[in-house]
Amino acid sequence: MKVLITGGGGFIGYRLARKLLERGTLAGPDGKPAPITQIKLLDGAFPPDPDPRLVCVQGDLAAPGLIGEVLERDTASVFHLAAVVSAGAEADFALGYRVNLDGTRFLLEACRRLARPARLVFASSVAAFGGDLPGVLDDSTTPNPQTSYGTQKVIGEYLVTDYSRKSYLDGRSLRLPTIVVRPGKPNLAASSFASSIFREPLNGVVAECPVPESTGIWLLSPRKVVDAFIHAHDLASSAWGTSRVLNLPGITVTVSEGVAALRRIAGDAVAARAQYKLDERINRIVQGWPVRFRTPRAAALGFAADPDIETVIRDYIADEGIRVG
Amino acid sequence: MKVLITGGGGFIGYRLARKLLERGTLAGPDGKPAPITQIKLLDGAFPPDPDPRLVCVQGDLAAPGLIGEVLERDTASVFHLAAVVSAGAEADFALGYRVNLDGTRFLLEACRRLARPARLVFASSVAAFGGDLPGVLDDSTTPNPQTSYGTQKVIGEYLVTDYSRKSYLDGRSLRLPTIVVRPGKPNLAASSFASSIFREPLNGVVAECPVPESTGIWLLSPRKVVDAFIHAHDLASSAWGTSRVLNLPGITVTVSEGVAALRRIAGDAVAARAQYKLDERINRIVQGWPVRFRTPRAAALGFAADPDIETVIRDYIADEGIRVG
Repeated sequence: MKVLITGGGGFIGYRLARKLLERGTLAGPDGKPAPITQIKLLDGAFPPDPDPRLVCVQGDLAAPGLIGEVLERDTASVFHLAAVVSAGAEADFALGYRVNLDGTRFLLEACRRLARPARLVFASSVAAFGGDLPGVLDDSTTPNPQTSYGTQKVIGEYLVTDYSRKSYLDGRSLRLPTIVVRPGKPNLAASSFASSIFREPLNGVVAECPVPESTGIWLLSPRKVVDAFIHAHDLASSAWGTSRVLNLPGITVTVSEGVAALRRIAGDAVAARAQYKLDERINRIVQGWPVRFRTPRAAALGFAADPDIETVIRDYIADEGIRVG
Repeated sequence: MKVLITGGGGFIGYRLARKLLERGTLAGPDGKPAPITQIKLLDGAFPPDPDPRLVCVQGDLAAPGLIGEVLERDTASVFHLAAVVSAGAEADFALGYRVNLDGTRFLLEACRRLARPARLVFASSVAAFGGDLPGVLDDSTTPNPQTSYGTQKVIGEYLVTDYSRKSYLDGRSLRLPTIVVRPGKPNLAASSFASSIFREPLNGVVAECPVPESTGIWLLSPRKVVDAFIHAHDLASSAWGTSRVLNLPGITVTVSEGVAALRRIAGDAVAARAQYKLDERINRIVQGWPVRFRTPRAAALGFAADPDIETVIRDYIADEGIRVG
């Protein structure tokens, strides 16, 4: 069976592709594991020297007509991760709607023309939530996004649900927590610090945390989010009931708890590189984010969070081959 | 100040236009009543001999470029009612998305180019709700539409909210109950019976009610929904807080309660024309609709429901100039 990953050149998308190569199967139309015959990635850029078993297509999901050519008629599974990120969609309103809404619609329309309805897993986000939030969010909390990115993700969820109801595809939308620890460099995202406070100190560099140490983060590791995409794909359609949208599980970790775990793993000198320099602009955004969730539905469906932040950091160290001490 | 009503040739849109003519003012940008200098209606068709004070533009909201020409640069107020209705959007998936989603986006984009942000009132619907519903819905119930129409309305709400957050417009979305009593003829809408059981008997014609007499309907009269549009427009932006979407108030009336009220008003012979002929297909749709709401937010904002079904029927008789007895 053929698989398409939009945003497959990105950090999560490419990790998902490598995991699928390693695994070799996904649930087929009958629900039983079926061999993957092709993994195609669509993105604007790819890691250097991508695995030769992957079909990498460079292109823009929102370019009219493109996805219709890229999506092969016998594609069985689509993972839709491509998006202009939060800060980008906020800075360029038209670009965000073009990629995150029009691009998603192009993809869903292309799926309608497949030989049989594809399973489609859509990467949504807890950016769906905002405004007057309860202390603990749960599966009944109504999305009220405070960014265009969050708005576009919620709209994508409703589209995936409607196309699924019409049997044009078999969709599942996952609201991702903040993914920690991301490798690479700090970026302009307001959430960048959530990875930086671990990554930079381990790289011998000082990280300046723009929020107070008491700030909580609702997070999930790269390993667990890849597992979640695959698990969401493989669940039977009937398991989803009347809702195709799921808040993924996560753990709530304060910055100070995270730094304490880093200290236990890598020592005082490393942890001391996590420093605080309040940035009012970023702090205001971050304090509006949801921090605590109850996710009984995800648990009942068999999704799992990381056990604790120490494990998240140790997995990062192992995955990236970092030498500690 | 200039006003645009999309769907202004339809039953509600045209009543709203006449009410605005009668009223002569709407809240201006400073919140104080300002004289209306122009009311423009955009629709595919209009009542015969429309009031000459109305500017009627025949056209399709979803025709690319059209709304940019129709919406004058100094328009201060927009009432967005144009839509392919529920059954139509369900029968023609592409048409529903073209008009209800693309059309709405064209309108919102056109609003971005106005001299100053317009107040915009969007007609959403309780079709937003469905799936596993609580016995009584309230302001916290999460939309889970079971039709493409409902999906398109919810998406429109999120768009209006995001454009408002960005100050591209000053939007307010109202979720309308079933409007009863609509004049005219029965149509293919599953909700058609909710008006037919009153209208046809008063016209001397038998109405066949496709649902059991115990079926509840969440309803609002044409008078009250027009009042609600104007009230929503005139409320200050600050009154809406972190949510631009509102469940309008309504009353829950069973078919048998409605027919009993009709009997009290028009006598046994008229009420006897409301007959029952179960239609399983329609009944299945109707039984999935929300019937009971608590609407404290609407009440706090000053919106009002009809006092009872008898008043709704009497108002219909008065508005349509029907002779009873």
